[in-house]
Amino acid sequence: MKIENLSDLFLHTVKDIYFAENQIVKALPKMVKAADSKELARAFEAHLEETKEQIKRLEQVFELLGKKPVGEKCPAIEGILKEGEELMKEIKDPDTRDAAMIAAAQAVEHYEITRYGTLVSWGALLGLPEAVKILSVTLKEEHGADTKLNKLAENKLNKQAA
Amino acid sequence: MKIENLSDLFLHTVKDIYFAENQIVKALPKMVKAADSKELARAFEAHLEETKEQIKRLEQVFELLGKKPVGEKCPAIEGILKEGEELMKEIKDPDTRDAAMIAAAQAVEHYEITRYGTLVSWGALLGLPEAVKILSVTLKEEHGADTKLNKLAENKLNKQAA
Repeated sequence: MKIENLSDLFLHTVKDIYFAENQIVKALPKMVKAADSKELARAFEAHLEETKEQIKRLEQVFELLGKKPVGEKCPAIEGILKEGEELMKEIKDPDTRDAAMIAAAQAVEHYEITRYGTLVSWGALLGLPEAVKILSVTLKEEHGADTKLNKLAENKLNKQAA
Repeated sequence: MKIENLSDLFLHTVKDIYFAENQIVKALPKMVKAADSKELARAFEAHLEETKEQIKRLEQVFELLGKKPVGEKCPAIEGILKEGEELMKEIKDPDTRDAAMIAAAQAVEHYEITRYGTLVSWGALLGLPEAVKILSVTLKEEHGADTKLNKLAENKLNKQAA
């Protein structure tokens, strides 16, 4: 799509994160399977459910914009997920692999935080209060998911791996 | 390299972010050139100087670990930078392009924040206080760079683009 103004850029970024969320939905079940810690597997499972809701929310945003929900290839999330997947396969020690998977998941969260943060800011300027409201719910969830992973890493899994 | 424990994973991640910082040093001058806003160009220039120092700090960490400073290909940063570069080339309107470049730079910052945050946490558990001290300086700088870009976007550039 051609991007000529901030409205186009907003739509482009919605498509980008829609693609990203759909890739994340595919990656998370593999992470649930590979997790050695039950607590980590549960955290990934919970985030999978959250992500499915986030996709529905993005579809609401597409509807508000009068557009069909379609993704646009996002090299950033592909690279972030690829890096995590490579480590997941390479590392044989379960505690070390769990530590690597948490770090990979936090990289995903941070990507989502930055994209949703930008969308909330642009949406406000574009006079899209309904979209901002929907996107803010997800932004808050992503911050929550990152904090949860951080606590799990700090309090438990990194110590096991050290 | 084979990753068998948290020490190996720590070294792998130092190599990953060393590669990333070196890619960022190559990308930033193009962003300085492409920025329409002088303020944004100056922010990118300042971050270029900061990044060069961050690379030197990583070389200190390699030295503390008794290892040679070498990067390891990092698909995540490649994807993040590729996405930013594509937008930079595609968007003709200067204000819209500046808004897209700030968003791209913030995605880079968030990637660095998550990686340095993980390294600080792992370094503490591995009993590497000197490395933690050095990496914490950079982590603080990355948070600062993100906040600076955020303010510039919110207070000025996004409004111009809207």
